[in-house]
Amino acid sequence: MEKFKVTFYPDNKSIEVEKGKTILSASLSAAVYINSSCGGDGVCGRCKVILKKGQVFTQPSGRISVDERRRGIYLACLTSAQSDLEIEVPPESRLDFEKLTQEEIDLRLKGFYTESEEVEPATSILGEEIFVHSPLATKLYLELPPPDLEDKISDLERLYRQIRRIQDIPIMQTGLANIRRLGELLRSSDWKITATLGKRNGTTEIVLIEQGDASHKNFGLCFDIGTTTISGQLVDLNTKQVLGTKATYNKQASFGSDIITRIVYAQQPDGLEKLHHAVIDGMNQMIQELIQEHEVDLNDVNCVLCAGNTTMVHLLLRVDPTYIRHQPYVPTANFFPTVRASEAGIKINPRGLLSCVAGVSSYVGGDVTAGVLSCGLDTENDLSILIDIGTNGEVVLGNKDFLISASASAGPAFEGSGVSCGMRASRGAIQKVKITPEEFGVAYNTIAQAKPRGICGSGYIDIVAEMLRMGLLDKSGKIKKEKSKRIRDNEYGKEFIVAFKEDADSASDIVITEADIENLKRAKAAIYAATNILIKYMGFKFEEIKKFFIAGGFGNYIDIENAIRIGLLPDLKREKFIFVGNSSLSGARAALLSYEAMKKAGNIAQKITYFELSVEPKYMDEYMAALFFPHTDLNKFPSVKV
Amino acid sequence: MEKFKVTFYPDNKSIEVEKGKTILSASLSAAVYINSSCGGDGVCGRCKVILKKGQVFTQPSGRISVDERRRGIYLACLTSAQSDLEIEVPPESRLDFEKLTQEEIDLRLKGFYTESEEVEPATSILGEEIFVHSPLATKLYLELPPPDLEDKISDLERLYRQIRRIQDIPIMQTGLANIRRLGELLRSSDWKITATLGKRNGTTEIVLIEQGDASHKNFGLCFDIGTTTISGQLVDLNTKQVLGTKATYNKQASFGSDIITRIVYAQQPDGLEKLHHAVIDGMNQMIQELIQEHEVDLNDVNCVLCAGNTTMVHLLLRVDPTYIRHQPYVPTANFFPTVRASEAGIKINPRGLLSCVAGVSSYVGGDVTAGVLSCGLDTENDLSILIDIGTNGEVVLGNKDFLISASASAGPAFEGSGVSCGMRASRGAIQKVKITPEEFGVAYNTIAQAKPRGICGSGYIDIVAEMLRMGLLDKSGKIKKEKSKRIRDNEYGKEFIVAFKEDADSASDIVITEADIENLKRAKAAIYAATNILIKYMGFKFEEIKKFFIAGGFGNYIDIENAIRIGLLPDLKREKFIFVGNSSLSGARAALLSYEAMKKAGNIAQKITYFELSVEPKYMDEYMAALFFPHTDLNKFPSVKV
Repeated sequence: MEKFKVTFYPDNKSIEVEKGKTILSASLSAAVYINSSCGGDGVCGRCKVILKKGQVFTQPSGRISVDERRRGIYLACLTSAQSDLEIEVPPESRLDFEKLTQEEIDLRLKGFYTESEEVEPATSILGEEIFVHSPLATKLYLELPPPDLEDKISDLERLYRQIRRIQDIPIMQTGLANIRRLGELLRSSDWKITATLGKRNGTTEIVLIEQGDASHKNFGLCFDIGTTTISGQLVDLNTKQVLGTKATYNKQASFGSDIITRIVYAQQPDGLEKLHHAVIDGMNQMIQELIQEHEVDLNDVNCVLCAGNTTMVHLLLRVDPTYIRHQPYVPTANFFPTVRASEAGIKINPRGLLSCVAGVSSYVGGDVTAGVLSCGLDTENDLSILIDIGTNGEVVLGNKDFLISASASAGPAFEGSGVSCGMRASRGAIQKVKITPEEFGVAYNTIAQAKPRGICGSGYIDIVAEMLRMGLLDKSGKIKKEKSKRIRDNEYGKEFIVAFKEDADSASDIVITEADIENLKRAKAAIYAATNILIKYMGFKFEEIKKFFIAGGFGNYIDIENAIRIGLLPDLKREKFIFVGNSSLSGARAALLSYEAMKKAGNIAQKITYFELSVEPKYMDEYMAALFFPHTDLNKFPSVKV
Repeated sequence: MEKFKVTFYPDNKSIEVEKGKTILSASLSAAVYINSSCGGDGVCGRCKVILKKGQVFTQPSGRISVDERRRGIYLACLTSAQSDLEIEVPPESRLDFEKLTQEEIDLRLKGFYTESEEVEPATSILGEEIFVHSPLATKLYLELPPPDLEDKISDLERLYRQIRRIQDIPIMQTGLANIRRLGELLRSSDWKITATLGKRNGTTEIVLIEQGDASHKNFGLCFDIGTTTISGQLVDLNTKQVLGTKATYNKQASFGSDIITRIVYAQQPDGLEKLHHAVIDGMNQMIQELIQEHEVDLNDVNCVLCAGNTTMVHLLLRVDPTYIRHQPYVPTANFFPTVRASEAGIKINPRGLLSCVAGVSSYVGGDVTAGVLSCGLDTENDLSILIDIGTNGEVVLGNKDFLISASASAGPAFEGSGVSCGMRASRGAIQKVKITPEEFGVAYNTIAQAKPRGICGSGYIDIVAEMLRMGLLDKSGKIKKEKSKRIRDNEYGKEFIVAFKEDADSASDIVITEADIENLKRAKAAIYAATNILIKYMGFKFEEIKKFFIAGGFGNYIDIENAIRIGLLPDLKREKFIFVGNSSLSGARAALLSYEAMKKAGNIAQKITYFELSVEPKYMDEYMAALFFPHTDLNKFPSVKV
């Protein structure tokens, strides 16, 4: 087979490929990461490259204009080498991906990504009270009648009989590990034992049997596994009390900031393993901190309930996510079975269970389902909307009759990642900002009133809005004013100093750069456009929405006026907006504490229709129109005074 | 704590024990094995020892007569050391247990215990035809519609949907191992796959997913796990055809010949492990031979269904059988869950399943349940009886309204073990014998017409009956005649030569000794007494029995006249006797091939009442009365001409 050398610029990386192999596949082999949302099917048009030298064979594509063709632009996935090639990968076709050595990854994890931190508990609009208390794992203290010549049923049947005297359980299961210990355990504990019952795929499993009365020690964990942030709670399953809440960055971010990059990385040798371990390590670290701080024995943690986007759940369970990014975007599963947590490497009781909230599709996962569960969107008579502002901005529109959802690639800016001084909503994060006219003084407020360490999502919204209000920014997000005390040049443009290092817990000034503002603009535009298109598609108007739920990892809640001013939220009556915090985490907690809630989440996942933005031509138009502050069409924002 | 030295004779083994420790517990520590059916509860009276020297403290027991007390006889389990002791263990209190070195065990396994051999297939009176064909593992070939933008459900749900189009399965389960392979497997096989579905505790598990159409390769194994003999069959689960049948001695016999000895051995360090591996090794060896001879791939063997007595099933699953021999004789489980065969160390497809037929009690196991299933005893209007002649002789009496069962310790003589020239019913076994008056000539018939290698159960019955008929034996089983060509003295008494070594495939003459005859007498007495007592207990007479099913590992069937003559079977009309061969194996096969049969076996197990012979005082009287040929009460055997 004839072989050709393909060299990629500006990377200056070369690879030998067989004739006929696509440039996209060559680039992957050369570790040059090119956008490819459709997974190389010639559909998304995101893998455009420029041919500098050489002969290629290409298939025709509507994604390449005549002008582009003339300039030597090709789709990498539809084009193959017929000679040695020199290929230029333009910035807009590059995945935001950094290939790091293990040492670099370790350094980065130690430095940029801080350890998990205590955060405010997730709220739940409905509360868990509306669901019957029936946690994923229940403990039953049982005093079994000892066998005698009149009552000689076996140990296992005796245990089943006693449990069934208390609960109606049609299908009960027990593993050999428990059965092997049963005879000795029953007798050494004088027939007084505690059985931990777990709900497992329509059956009940005896997860664990302990001596004596251990029923008061029954703990569980719920997690929201986000692309950028992982949040977790330790919950007393008997009292429903949340003992502690933590959040940490998802260590997978070292392998790429967005879902697509992670999926691409999973195809590398050991890539899937590395991504799996990154998320599990973060969770295990958080679990260790939570149980130590709250003096809980790891063996008394009997179950974990996770909500996450579909890719995160695949990686959590070490399931190949490849097909999520290939048309027609079908994941391996939306409904994963309950498994032993140890099968995924999660360190709780070795026999403890792991359940994931059911997802809807490749790009609307269990985190959205959990959010809808938590807000009760599916129970409303009136039209409601839920937007979850994370790395993907998911939007769900509906009421008790229908639910429709879309997912917009917003990027992690609102989660404090990918922006120069961004941080999660934790101690020292600037969360509220006012800019005063006099020499543009800045008044801010930080979480826990600590010295500022960085800026979280709600802080960024305030800063951009205030800069707009004070005439510091133009509608496109460029800093208009000349250099001053707070405005200075940097390598790529200008930046505004929010807090001077003298006043901060930081080695350098805390700033917002034009590049940061551009990131925030894209994020808000993606979310606004998705919201807008769903409402249009269903034939509604914004005014018809009665409740507008806002979820996301914001520490305290964002300022509505400012969020409208920058065009993240539509210009509706302010009383319609309801903050639900991390609704994914509170939904996961509801499912952890109630099997009824867990089943309802499954029903919600089946009820939600998924709307694929990437195949909707109008989405790009909406997005482009939203790439201004607040919008190109100011009629949409009558209350915003410009 | 004060310590004393206890020395056991004739073993001359000493051990230091703390004051207050029982002699029984001291004997176990010293590896001197004393009978103790009740497990040291002072109930069975089988652990009598003679105090030669020293002071003891003992609890009063009705099991020790005044005369015994005077002679220094104590129950080892109720007596503790108060000084250094010398203890004599009389033969009747000793477990027939040989403590062998590993080398000795290996030698013995190689020598005495032959490799597994092809045997005749087990018959089934009812046949499996009456049960719906629904094997433990089913293979379904599926052509899934590939996903497109109109049909985007996930891979796993797509698989479930397709399966549910064919079968109504309320609860379907799949493990992570299959899910992790699913995405790639579906696509690389062009959405044409074969799913292996296993029935697992009220749910259906997707055991395995293969590329393409592999539905024609679906095999299973059924086993009868006896104390002395393991029999197994390889079955084509699609066609129900039995491909091969094998039997081998249970290698556990090296650790003791009866159940009680094995249970005692299981309490030794690593004892349970060793017993578990002994039975598993035998099964794996048989599986290897069967698949090689019938050219079946191990990965196409998807399930194993075992019937065995309760202790054997515990040891198979590596579950401690200790409590089986402790009053009130309660096993860990009678209904074991279906598990992965690999969890028990059985080597078939690594994800294949292992099910055991449900048992009734500690001494009436799944082998009896399977036998009842196979004979259809529970469906008869008329009163029927099933006797299964193995190391334990189990008897079940009943009809469609009731079932009652008992288990008699018969010993392995009828299985060709523990008798000097005994062998299983395989090639070269003397199975039919006639003794002619002229100089007591012997005419015999061997299995496969091979040169004689030994004597199997049916041969022994014939020989004893013929010796009785010819006046060679008295009613107690002693050889009456003087030395002659065929009668000679041995170390312990006399023996009768059945086949001279010149005519045999044997290094020495094939004989039956007085000790053999004593063993056979005890075995038949135990079984007859159990049969008799059940009938009396239920208020019936022998004559009311309409069908008398005889099961057991006899190669060809035993001669009814001879079995009645020796008093093994009652003197009923000959047409009532029905041979069912290895009914445990045929019941296991029925359950392997039909989930309906498996469920029915569970119902049978629950329906059978267990009658505990050891707490029934009349049983010993019946047993003693039966320790003659045919019986002390000749009125019970009118047709036997003495």
